[in-house]
Amino acid sequence: MRISELSELTGVPVATLKYYLREGLLPEGRRRTSNQTDYDDAHVRSVRLVRALLETGGLSIADARRVLATLDEEPAYTFAATQHALGVGRPRTPGTETSARALARVADLAATRGWRVSADNPGLEIAARVLDDFAAIGFEPTDEYLAAYAEGAERVAHADVAALRDRESPEAAAELMIVGTVVGDALAAGLRRLAHQDATAELFPTTPRTSHPAKPASREEPA
Amino acid sequence: MRISELSELTGVPVATLKYYLREGLLPEGRRRTSNQTDYDDAHVRSVRLVRALLETGGLSIADARRVLATLDEEPAYTFAATQHALGVGRPRTPGTETSARALARVADLAATRGWRVSADNPGLEIAARVLDDFAAIGFEPTDEYLAAYAEGAERVAHADVAALRDRESPEAAAELMIVGTVVGDALAAGLRRLAHQDATAELFPTTPRTSHPAKPASREEPA
Repeated sequence: MRISELSELTGVPVATLKYYLREGLLPEGRRRTSNQTDYDDAHVRSVRLVRALLETGGLSIADARRVLATLDEEPAYTFAATQHALGVGRPRTPGTETSARALARVADLAATRGWRVSADNPGLEIAARVLDDFAAIGFEPTDEYLAAYAEGAERVAHADVAALRDRESPEAAAELMIVGTVVGDALAAGLRRLAHQDATAELFPTTPRTSHPAKPASREEPA
Repeated sequence: MRISELSELTGVPVATLKYYLREGLLPEGRRRTSNQTDYDDAHVRSVRLVRALLETGGLSIADARRVLATLDEEPAYTFAATQHALGVGRPRTPGTETSARALARVADLAATRGWRVSADNPGLEIAARVLDDFAAIGFEPTDEYLAAYAEGAERVAHADVAALRDRESPEAAAELMIVGTVVGDALAAGLRRLAHQDATAELFPTTPRTSHPAKPASREEPA
């Protein structure tokens, strides 16, 4: 197909496709004549993957290129490269370091679960920051609390891996690995919002469940 | 304490504290003389809450004010207000709407779990977008797959609610509700990264588990 058809099929403007090609995010098409290049279904798939990385994942061009480069290598590299490209979250206040105590607690949790993880897995830093944020408001989570989060993570990770096994080709599995890493957090977060509302209905049974109060804010000052 | 002490205790510069006061994010201190105002432990706690909303949660001043305003109301409002302030994620490509099909599937999932959720819970949109992203690469998750994510969400939501019950005061519970909503997704995401590495070790048993390949990207073009 021509680039105009590739654009129609993917909903991505031709100019953007050409930009992806220049940046090396899409493989070149097959040149048929000096002014005609052919694209195929593999390109359609590639465009969708690039969109997932750039838009949904918010990755930079360089990071997206690094992740895509791993598709020719071992699958575990693709996972690791995607995790690293996604990073560890928003920049912190200058001078605020993740505490060694929080990092040790997350490492202990992983060890207790028997997880085989490398020391540079970004998840250690991501989770440790949360423990520091909790500590700042005087919340020290119990072992049971962290075990519940760890069990939830295991549950979804196993579902993810089962889904990878079911894909029709190694390429399709690699795609899902990337997209699942990039957007899967949001699936967990969205369902957590719903589960919170339900669990809160139990905690505060008298509260009307209908809707969110849209009234304007007016924070009262103490007398 | 004076504002300088409040600054030292919280690590937030005096100028930033004054900005928070002007914006109504912090309650005024108690004026003792014309040029001396007293702050107390409640202010220390407020400052940490504001930091959690603005920095960790990335909320705007207006959204943070709206969330803080709910602290004087019913606890379920605080949950809902925080969920709404956090929003539904990155802006999408213009013209890309979340599909009715994906929204219906998430609503079905919630109904199957027996979750009591309102139609404006942002989790519906957040999760539905992920299903659309999956569909774009031809991945149609099975019911078992979604059930695994839903069970994980229930597990962590119940742990969150149990932690709320254990807090020493309604104020402390409200704080945890806000901070837990803002940063709890990251705890789940961090542990998911770790669980993925472990689950991948099972999937690809021959892959070295040590580290992430830091080599520069060089995407090969097809011949």
